[in-house]
Amino acid sequence: MNLIESFQSQLQQAFPYVSKIHTKLLLAVSGGVDSIVLVDLFYKAGFDFMIAHCNFHLRGEESNRDEMFVKTIAELYQKEIFIQHFDTVKIAEVEKTSIEETARNLRYHWFTELLNEERNFPSSLQNKFIVTAHHANDTIETLLMNFFRGTGIGGLHGIPAHNENIIRPLLFAKREAIIAYAKANNLNWVEDSSNQSETYTRNFFRLNFLPNMQEYFPKVEGNLLNNIERFKEVEILYTQAVDLNRKKLLQQKGNEFFMPVLLLQKIPAQQTLLWEILKGFSFSQSQIPEVVKLLSSTSGAYMDAQTHRIFKNRNHLIITPLAERFSQQILINEGDKNVSFEGGSLKFSLMQNDGNIEKTSAIAMLDTKNLEFPLLLRKWKAGDYFYPLGMKKKKKLARFFIDQKLSLSQKEALWLIESNKKIVWVLGLRIDDRFKVLASTQKILKIEFKYR
Amino acid sequence: MNLIESFQSQLQQAFPYVSKIHTKLLLAVSGGVDSIVLVDLFYKAGFDFMIAHCNFHLRGEESNRDEMFVKTIAELYQKEIFIQHFDTVKIAEVEKTSIEETARNLRYHWFTELLNEERNFPSSLQNKFIVTAHHANDTIETLLMNFFRGTGIGGLHGIPAHNENIIRPLLFAKREAIIAYAKANNLNWVEDSSNQSETYTRNFFRLNFLPNMQEYFPKVEGNLLNNIERFKEVEILYTQAVDLNRKKLLQQKGNEFFMPVLLLQKIPAQQTLLWEILKGFSFSQSQIPEVVKLLSSTSGAYMDAQTHRIFKNRNHLIITPLAERFSQQILINEGDKNVSFEGGSLKFSLMQNDGNIEKTSAIAMLDTKNLEFPLLLRKWKAGDYFYPLGMKKKKKLARFFIDQKLSLSQKEALWLIESNKKIVWVLGLRIDDRFKVLASTQKILKIEFKYR
Repeated sequence: MNLIESFQSQLQQAFPYVSKIHTKLLLAVSGGVDSIVLVDLFYKAGFDFMIAHCNFHLRGEESNRDEMFVKTIAELYQKEIFIQHFDTVKIAEVEKTSIEETARNLRYHWFTELLNEERNFPSSLQNKFIVTAHHANDTIETLLMNFFRGTGIGGLHGIPAHNENIIRPLLFAKREAIIAYAKANNLNWVEDSSNQSETYTRNFFRLNFLPNMQEYFPKVEGNLLNNIERFKEVEILYTQAVDLNRKKLLQQKGNEFFMPVLLLQKIPAQQTLLWEILKGFSFSQSQIPEVVKLLSSTSGAYMDAQTHRIFKNRNHLIITPLAERFSQQILINEGDKNVSFEGGSLKFSLMQNDGNIEKTSAIAMLDTKNLEFPLLLRKWKAGDYFYPLGMKKKKKLARFFIDQKLSLSQKEALWLIESNKKIVWVLGLRIDDRFKVLASTQKILKIEFKYR
Repeated sequence: MNLIESFQSQLQQAFPYVSKIHTKLLLAVSGGVDSIVLVDLFYKAGFDFMIAHCNFHLRGEESNRDEMFVKTIAELYQKEIFIQHFDTVKIAEVEKTSIEETARNLRYHWFTELLNEERNFPSSLQNKFIVTAHHANDTIETLLMNFFRGTGIGGLHGIPAHNENIIRPLLFAKREAIIAYAKANNLNWVEDSSNQSETYTRNFFRLNFLPNMQEYFPKVEGNLLNNIERFKEVEILYTQAVDLNRKKLLQQKGNEFFMPVLLLQKIPAQQTLLWEILKGFSFSQSQIPEVVKLLSSTSGAYMDAQTHRIFKNRNHLIITPLAERFSQQILINEGDKNVSFEGGSLKFSLMQNDGNIEKTSAIAMLDTKNLEFPLLLRKWKAGDYFYPLGMKKKKKLARFFIDQKLSLSQKEALWLIESNKKIVWVLGLRIDDRFKVLASTQKILKIEFKYR
């Protein structure tokens, strides 16, 4: 079977919903040989499609050459073309993502926008898809990259043939078959001379790794493609088992999730199950060994992730949302000894004034005479003002922070205590002059602050 | 932590049942650096052990040099040593297994024999184990070999640390750490200059593949070891799901197993589940696509494996043992039109004698006058005799077969039909002269035989 025949048979088998009528496609065309062959195959098969090309401006004149080339392709096949320019380097800097990831995100985001334009892809269509030219060697390279970087079963399924509104009908074809087709049909294409790190690694697999392996494992490409098919099914079964175990292990009560310690201690595949469960609560894989240690810790031991805390409470590990656990305002009653909150913990003690004042930023010594309970522990807000210790006139906190040369994140992390709407202490920074200990002070409230 | 410390901590963690008392070990020592370090570590840790060395005679004088060297090691550490010689090449030829597989089989078989010798390993011991020196790079190489040859999840767990009576306590250690330990402790060892195909592939991974990969994936060794740990747990969960699906899919009735076609048609991971179920009935992985086709075949369609047949019967695929399906004796009643049996199938038709006798070995034309129903279809047995067509005196079948120059397997496959204890037809070979069609014959029973 030649490429055009196997392409059409593959379409029927793997994408039976992609038909010549009621379907319109948006072909992603870089100008490379894969995408040119994709265009030619869909053209010859008589499909209705448009072309989209991204100019990422990553390769200077070469990027513009590619754009021009894809324009001529659109003319040649008489298809409408969309072109978008991206300042990829700048966006990557702002978003703090790699060039490859940035380009990938921009590309699929724009494609989806195009697909949602009523004018070109009316909602009366039965089907509309973005089509990319990924082929068998791309999926092998993805498998290999994941495998050598380290992965679970989720990294072994290669590039999906269909997810959401994207289809990849060339995944069955090897690179050499695609190039052979292009040559046999006198197609022109452009070569990408870039050396982005991912391309670099992919080139290594293509030019060095696979030829080398073929000496020892002559059928290595086919073997890896078969692996991918098997691992896809393994992943389906794995996911079934994870879901069953999750049901057994995780019990929801309101906003909290309970996991029985005894069951966790003896469950097979403990680490994997903890990871599969906890990643949904923003925990990272590297935290899992610490979570395992929690199982044998004393009650109260805990670990935090971005959105959730997991803590040991007698016979359970309990997962609780951090925002729920720490309200943004906490009332402190007379006699409270310890208070935990998002920013840390406070310890309160009452003492006689013996003339010794501890002067560290983590401790506040306050005259009890002017304090009115309950005190309120809260984050600072715009408009807050106080009388910084040593000053007789009030000062806006915002202004005070500038004087203190605080960074944005330092400011955001600041908490304060107020008494009857007067600020008493900006934690870790300065007490209010109105509550300072005088020679006449009899009783002192000492508050010790510990950062998280 | 140096190697001896991490070795001891690894022993405690992964092999808590291996203690210095009540445990006796049999160390497999080739003389290579891994096994020499194994001896040194167990010696320094104060364990009770003996040494076993196989001389596979695969490398001429070098094999004998290794044997001599391991003897000096046993003397040095004052441990008892067992040495066994194997004519590996010859055994591999007879058993038709590769040299590596043969050596592996011989080795573990002999080790187990040693472990079962009451004199050296009395049953009063709490624990006794064979210990091999496999290390982290061995398990990485095994993972890679399976991966590139093509594998399911079962090929991704590396070398097991403990199975049956074998433990492998050095799996945690990388080759370079073992060599560094040997050098630091002034240990001597021998190098294996062999180039058996598996060694050849392992050398490729060690000397070419991994150093090459490290340029692109600096932590590749650690990543692969972590993969192995994760894949072990994935395999546990995968097996849970397979077992659950098997319960849903497979219903036993007597000797037969029923699988509902409708359920199979829509079950996720169809191919993998069919393979996991059918491999227990001697089917091979390459037969699975054919089994999938059976789902949409007409009733009666079937596929055979060595011990079982799977056939479509209305809404089920039915797995049935071949030996059970075909009894060794089948009664053929007057009027039976078709008979299926292990050796093939028979078609019966009755006709008037019009003087045309078909003379092919697959067809018997018999005079009905002398036939007594039911006929008996059975395999031949020692002592059987008949009157071969054209002969007037009886002949033992065994003798007849010699004249016919039948091979053993041809003889074993032979079936015959008898009528009232007289042999009527040796299927596919010769009818009995007493039942041949004569000019006077009126009615003929025509039997057509079709091999399986």
